[in-house]
Amino acid sequence: MYYIGVDLGGTSIKVGLVTESGSIIKKNSGATPVEKGYEGVTNKIIELIHNLMETTEVKKEDIKAVGVGVPGVANEEGFIYFATNLFWKNVPFGEKLQEVTGMKVYVENDATVAAVAEYTNGATAGTKNSIFFTLGTGLGGGIIINNQVFSGSHGIGTEVGHVIVGDNFYDCTCGSNGCLETFVSATALIKHCKSLLQDNKESMIYHRVEGDLEAINARIIFDCAREGDSIAIKTVNRMIHYLAIGIGNFINIFDPDVIAIGGGISESGDVFLEDLKEEVKKYIYVKSMNITEIKLAQFKNDAGIIGSAMYAKLQLIR
Amino acid sequence: MYYIGVDLGGTSIKVGLVTESGSIIKKNSGATPVEKGYEGVTNKIIELIHNLMETTEVKKEDIKAVGVGVPGVANEEGFIYFATNLFWKNVPFGEKLQEVTGMKVYVENDATVAAVAEYTNGATAGTKNSIFFTLGTGLGGGIIINNQVFSGSHGIGTEVGHVIVGDNFYDCTCGSNGCLETFVSATALIKHCKSLLQDNKESMIYHRVEGDLEAINARIIFDCAREGDSIAIKTVNRMIHYLAIGIGNFINIFDPDVIAIGGGISESGDVFLEDLKEEVKKYIYVKSMNITEIKLAQFKNDAGIIGSAMYAKLQLIR
Repeated sequence: MYYIGVDLGGTSIKVGLVTESGSIIKKNSGATPVEKGYEGVTNKIIELIHNLMETTEVKKEDIKAVGVGVPGVANEEGFIYFATNLFWKNVPFGEKLQEVTGMKVYVENDATVAAVAEYTNGATAGTKNSIFFTLGTGLGGGIIINNQVFSGSHGIGTEVGHVIVGDNFYDCTCGSNGCLETFVSATALIKHCKSLLQDNKESMIYHRVEGDLEAINARIIFDCAREGDSIAIKTVNRMIHYLAIGIGNFINIFDPDVIAIGGGISESGDVFLEDLKEEVKKYIYVKSMNITEIKLAQFKNDAGIIGSAMYAKLQLIR
Repeated sequence: MYYIGVDLGGTSIKVGLVTESGSIIKKNSGATPVEKGYEGVTNKIIELIHNLMETTEVKKEDIKAVGVGVPGVANEEGFIYFATNLFWKNVPFGEKLQEVTGMKVYVENDATVAAVAEYTNGATAGTKNSIFFTLGTGLGGGIIINNQVFSGSHGIGTEVGHVIVGDNFYDCTCGSNGCLETFVSATALIKHCKSLLQDNKESMIYHRVEGDLEAINARIIFDCAREGDSIAIKTVNRMIHYLAIGIGNFINIFDPDVIAIGGGISESGDVFLEDLKEEVKKYIYVKSMNITEIKLAQFKNDAGIIGSAMYAKLQLIR
């Protein structure tokens, strides 16, 4: 028996046939037809699933369930409150997909399904309580409590990027000021770096982008930090400081076994992970019990497919 | 069958015989002999339990278990990492009490057992996920997730007062700066009020304490706020602002059914509850889903006895 994992993103949809143990048999993908609205996107998903089943000669009876990771907030029935990049608001996505495919469908936030991939087959495997942060354009996360996926009473919890941890020089897209995401994300790094470069054009970064500040990205900042550029280091250090506060907060609340860090920024973990672990110690309330392991996530591009498939599995056997 | 609930505080020990449904049959109390160390305190608890059983003619066989709420951090075995007011550090309290009484003993943090009282018989009864804040000298809390008491992988979670939410003008006793407790607690109110009075002696508060700033307490601040004193209102408003951020953070993480506010400060809920609810709305990420109920806790002095007894019950049937 198999699961189908669907990684629904703002630019592409990835679909995979996944074994009970979380291995991908075959993948398939296509562009997300955002302009065609939620029905067009749903049809595209169905098309990709059908193609996948045809090429692998897997029948409907062989599929236990379909899991979907969505870039938005969904409840248990797969009702999407909103998915900004897809321009969806209050859409009965799960119900529709289940109706058309005739298969059992489970929908969750993309960061939560990535957390599930780490929990079933990756960095947090074998633990009871874990937090997963995904550091990309924004900051998302997923929470496993008592070996179960946690997303609150109405599916709107685990918005770890929207925990307020201080005052910031710019507001969050959510309207608040001081959200963790505005200190710890690619967007946050770029904005902070640009603000530092206003006063100091002597940075390696400035030369790397040939004076075009719009060309700055997180990778350039980490590369320059690795080479000792002071503005880049200052930018990364501020991220470390606030990420440590964020992680400290989550340790003081959840006392988890592991905190795993994934997403694009985690690929530069060599620049910040050790300093981060040191900084986190300052914020742990029970200082004698510094036992939450902080590590990089294991999955990269396949987290969405594996995680959504394994999420469907976990929900089915719950 | 009965449970015994023990509310162990820095100044007094309260012990109660509690029914299966959470009603107190009889109470008993005594001063905490802190100076006699953990063995002296443990002996005092045993003495109080024995007296209680004698006066109620209840036998050991009638007691299912003993629950103890402690002013500190404990793990599942009742090992106390620290209890500042008792001057305890790394003490095998639960094991000792179980050994001497011959009864099953369950130990938890006092804020967590108060959360349990609300969950079994009070403000959060009938809900699946809830957060309880206790606003007193400090800020403690308890978390119920999926109808189970949550305290993390090693019993050191739910330190809700030590979530960093901003920068403050004084450091927390834990060594960090910006802990929620330093904005939202009697201590925080008093410190902030004093700092405001430095520049403005025209406040009603100043007259109420006859110029003795050391005599200021939270009750005076709330009383003066109720009467329209601007310094008192300013002090309370800052507490509301940060409590709203703290509650918003917890909603964005936990998406609970209810957040209940207890402790001494909750007795002045008439001054701040409605404004707090309005302020919280600003910080909820999924603004269309403003459905977490924010209310005052139900129990006052008996929360510790009932909560620790019901905690023992929950652990026993877990």
